[in-house]
Amino acid sequence: MNGADALITTLADNGVTACFANPGTSEMQFVSALDREPRMRPVLCLFEGVATGAADGYGRMTGTPACTLLHLGPGYSNGAANLHNARRAFTPIINVVGDHATYHKEYDAPLNSDIASLAAPNSIAVLTARTADEVGPMATDAIMMSYGPPGGSVCLILPADAAWNETTVVGGQAHRDGKSGIPPGAVEEVAEAVRAAKKPVFLLGSGSCDEASLAAAGRLAAGGYRILIDTFTSRQSRGAGRFAPDKMLYFGEMALADLEGVDLMVLVETVEPVAFFAYPDRPSLLVPEGCRTLCLAGRNESGLEAMAAVADALGLTAPAVMTQLEQPAAPAGRLDPYSIGAAIARHMPDNAVISDDAVTAGLPIYLSTKTARPHEWLSLTGGAIGQGIPVAIGAAVACPERKVLCLSGDGAAMYTNQGLWTIAREQLDVTVVVFANHSYRILGIELGRTGAGNPGPAAKTLLDLGNPRIDWVSLASGLGIPAERCSTAEEFDAAMAKAMATKGPCFIEAAL
Amino acid sequence: MNGADALITTLADNGVTACFANPGTSEMQFVSALDREPRMRPVLCLFEGVATGAADGYGRMTGTPACTLLHLGPGYSNGAANLHNARRAFTPIINVVGDHATYHKEYDAPLNSDIASLAAPNSIAVLTARTADEVGPMATDAIMMSYGPPGGSVCLILPADAAWNETTVVGGQAHRDGKSGIPPGAVEEVAEAVRAAKKPVFLLGSGSCDEASLAAAGRLAAGGYRILIDTFTSRQSRGAGRFAPDKMLYFGEMALADLEGVDLMVLVETVEPVAFFAYPDRPSLLVPEGCRTLCLAGRNESGLEAMAAVADALGLTAPAVMTQLEQPAAPAGRLDPYSIGAAIARHMPDNAVISDDAVTAGLPIYLSTKTARPHEWLSLTGGAIGQGIPVAIGAAVACPERKVLCLSGDGAAMYTNQGLWTIAREQLDVTVVVFANHSYRILGIELGRTGAGNPGPAAKTLLDLGNPRIDWVSLASGLGIPAERCSTAEEFDAAMAKAMATKGPCFIEAAL
Repeated sequence: MNGADALITTLADNGVTACFANPGTSEMQFVSALDREPRMRPVLCLFEGVATGAADGYGRMTGTPACTLLHLGPGYSNGAANLHNARRAFTPIINVVGDHATYHKEYDAPLNSDIASLAAPNSIAVLTARTADEVGPMATDAIMMSYGPPGGSVCLILPADAAWNETTVVGGQAHRDGKSGIPPGAVEEVAEAVRAAKKPVFLLGSGSCDEASLAAAGRLAAGGYRILIDTFTSRQSRGAGRFAPDKMLYFGEMALADLEGVDLMVLVETVEPVAFFAYPDRPSLLVPEGCRTLCLAGRNESGLEAMAAVADALGLTAPAVMTQLEQPAAPAGRLDPYSIGAAIARHMPDNAVISDDAVTAGLPIYLSTKTARPHEWLSLTGGAIGQGIPVAIGAAVACPERKVLCLSGDGAAMYTNQGLWTIAREQLDVTVVVFANHSYRILGIELGRTGAGNPGPAAKTLLDLGNPRIDWVSLASGLGIPAERCSTAEEFDAAMAKAMATKGPCFIEAAL
Repeated sequence: MNGADALITTLADNGVTACFANPGTSEMQFVSALDREPRMRPVLCLFEGVATGAADGYGRMTGTPACTLLHLGPGYSNGAANLHNARRAFTPIINVVGDHATYHKEYDAPLNSDIASLAAPNSIAVLTARTADEVGPMATDAIMMSYGPPGGSVCLILPADAAWNETTVVGGQAHRDGKSGIPPGAVEEVAEAVRAAKKPVFLLGSGSCDEASLAAAGRLAAGGYRILIDTFTSRQSRGAGRFAPDKMLYFGEMALADLEGVDLMVLVETVEPVAFFAYPDRPSLLVPEGCRTLCLAGRNESGLEAMAAVADALGLTAPAVMTQLEQPAAPAGRLDPYSIGAAIARHMPDNAVISDDAVTAGLPIYLSTKTARPHEWLSLTGGAIGQGIPVAIGAAVACPERKVLCLSGDGAAMYTNQGLWTIAREQLDVTVVVFANHSYRILGIELGRTGAGNPGPAAKTLLDLGNPRIDWVSLASGLGIPAERCSTAEEFDAAMAKAMATKGPCFIEAAL
């Protein structure tokens, strides 16, 4: 057994059984060791941003980490944008980064770089194995740290000699700390404050958007209290049979208008809401003036238990009012995010997973699917576009029995189009919809909001993707995934009906 | 004038007139300011690795920096792999990275991250403008630092408020330090050592591979001394009328066999050669045992002057023997890197630029073009594949009168396929050849060399790109670039003849 074997065995012993990989020479021992550990599923990604985003999607669906296999500093950096998103989703991930042999580092060979500096901003911890004996126990530590709560990426740097040298040491079982229980005193303080407030709201973060936590929140809603969730959450259980909270609005001034008069904001596994970007003369903090904020549960505490206890303390006995299934009529005419949303709501099967990187098309579809069959919604948590296709891959590997639907802007999809090939290769049950508006439309909106005025000809060239127009059907077909283009609501509805009824890869260009 | 205007004016005043951009909301002031500075050419890239690689290609051809425009930490990270390559090429680049407004940072909005930590490993300096008044002078500093010698990337972080606030301060002219002259004493020491040595060689780095430096080296060669250059150089002047040095071989054991008996290695703008990767029981340092190394010129010193002085000191009066134009016969039959090399050598026009990211196909084509028309060869300096298409973009923007030829492995081209769209959009005079062997072939070779044994089924899945086979013609056409597939040497020769004779974008899939 060498260090690479010890690593993979330790990972698999701890349930880390998916490896999203784009290896190079320094990772060859790990690659070879995969043949000696059948529990680990290797999934090849042709760009590291696909690998890390897939690990994010996997972790969001399972709650346990997948691992990635990345090639030194450049490989890590290529995956860093989606690890940034994963950091904001608190997703457990083990990033195995191959490095030069320990004795080779000093020679500063061409691929050498400071991996720790590159990895630190998006990692809970950066660990480096100096010997083969260290690898297994360090993997156990990495897994334990990745769990959190609230969870995150751990970077495990594996020098080539630590991988190829012999060892007898396998890592042990990684202990998992659950979330802490109810923070002492918080329930009573919140209950009292809520009673005294004129217009209290509860704001829930990613950790409190699962079905059970939302049901607890729904008890508060049934008692007359408003429930909001963060604009972007790692995973929200939605649709029929779930409690449907409101969502913080994206643009700050709309969010503040929506919160007008609120005098108490109770935070549940989240922090005070802030504007996504700063704009001249607009506030950063999205808490109304004079509004008190109270933390009911931090991100490592159980919002579920805390909300249930507050409901008890308030004497609320009615259960949450759950969403009733309500299907829209078949859309007709113009293809736009609303008609697309209607088609999706009609055809999406039970327990589908939506990976949302749809930018300007996202909110209309989110609203349109409120009363659809039960599903999970995975948001772009960190604002780094290019997450949609990779997260869909990871969700599909994690949940082969579920239909996965990826919604992506065209600008976003270009970042990680390589993922289409992995979907085809692994025959994943993923339908990718790309919204081809041939522009960075959000930037056209944001340009005015930042006080930068109207775009002139030079500025316009940086917002326009229309010259040449990308032929998405040609691109996706070239990467091996069956593809079609829809230009009307009727065409899209028919394509969606077929895609949702058929298992396997599918690509739809929504020509907007 | 706001901070963004001050920045762009300062850049343009200093000859920084190409901006490879993939902006987001925090960069909208810069985008808007482009309309007020016609000297700056904005080039939209749909992935940041394209932008940074293009800036690298531009800087290699002009010796002056281009700027990039990147969106906070994730945007920078997406561009980091090609900045790693640029670091190893010593290319001057100004990376303008937008950030949240200074007062917004503390709220840790979703896109916030530690940009300085992400940027430090690949940057000469990381500068942050705290006010609009600081921006212009800081840009002057950044340009000055980027020049070196030997040159590199400077990261200039531009908070949104430093961009949108008013200022009257434009930066001044950036002073450029040239390379230092001959290091004192080195010439005499080297001349003496060379005379005394049985088998001396001169090893030249990137800074000494221009036409004039090679001509100076050729005087030493005419005197009977062997000239080698580093395996990967930022830019080498080659072909007819140039002196043709040998090249350090990639695999360490071959390099050491080639250097057998060498007892003196004179380093000219480079350092002691090392193996690209470590392998069990193989040396890291590629200097034969007992061989003395002497530094004639460091990377900030003039190898050209130093070599000419050594030739003088050695009494060598004969000029370099220059390569004679010699064209191969039309290739026929099987399409392989040698027949491809022959076709390229036949049709490549004077002063073409080759961007080489061809991995296993690279060396055969390099050898085949030794006696072709004069051209410039840009190597993959840092080992992070995905450089070929972006560097070709930058070279074409820098040198619109030159034909640019991009040679890329299929695995490499997948990393930055988004660049094909920019080539089409800007109607650049670039021909892209992708070698479709449908595998990470180099890894199949390296797996055995690292002692990892023969690949089993699991390992094979991570080296094989053939399932599904990427249809490069479909992919490239989808991105707007005219494309064809060649399966025989005759087809490829005809396609190359046409591509080299026609101005504008062209894509050829070489089906190997």
